[in-house]
Amino acid sequence: MVINDPEVVAELAALYPRYEEALVSNDADTLTEMFWDSPHALRFGATENLHGSAEIAAFRQARPGANLARTIDRLDIVAFGRDTGSITLEFTRQLPGKTVRGRQSQLWIRLPEGWKIVSAHVSLLPS
Amino acid sequence: MVINDPEVVAELAALYPRYEEALVSNDADTLTEMFWDSPHALRFGATENLHGSAEIAAFRQARPGANLARTIDRLDIVAFGRDTGSITLEFTRQLPGKTVRGRQSQLWIRLPEGWKIVSAHVSLLPS
Repeated sequence: MVINDPEVVAELAALYPRYEEALVSNDADTLTEMFWDSPHALRFGATENLHGSAEIAAFRQARPGANLARTIDRLDIVAFGRDTGSITLEFTRQLPGKTVRGRQSQLWIRLPEGWKIVSAHVSLLPS
Repeated sequence: MVINDPEVVAELAALYPRYEEALVSNDADTLTEMFWDSPHALRFGATENLHGSAEIAAFRQARPGANLARTIDRLDIVAFGRDTGSITLEFTRQLPGKTVRGRQSQLWIRLPEGWKIVSAHVSLLPS
């Protein structure tokens, strides 16, 4: 298995800013489209556990759009073979009266319909 | 790509209890051995961000062994092709005076040296 094939890393590196832009602009349709459309899709969010694309989509649609901006402090992309990618990052958010630090992990798989996030985990570090 | 090939799911399902047993018994050597030995290995823990197998191993060696028991409330295993597995779970820990709920995500890759955790993320839900 080839680790970090430059072509695959480049594909993943192009997906990352699309996701980030959709996230901070609260573009629910794009965010939903970037996740695997499957009951096996999973998203552990900062305060919720979502199982399956229906729960993930409902969460996106209901999420308030304010205060979603964040600064990326570190980004790591690792590609395993041609069809698997790990995108992980550390971020900082400025909320009213406090700064919070968090982490995001995404597992991307190249499916027949294209690259999709099949599992994600977002959490905040204790302040 | 075959999703959830029964043979691959069975392999991952056999790895999960080995990890769990090593975790609650604080078997640092086994936990370290189950992670990818690479500077690209990553573990976002409940309170720390660890980059590379050296940082992960040092954390394991320094971790106190008390109060690591946990109850698994939900376990999901998804296999992508022959060489990629997502193992995610939700757990509850009884700490002195409180119950905490958490989540664990692991990305497993079949490397020449065998199945290894290449990325993990553990976090607690706000109580």
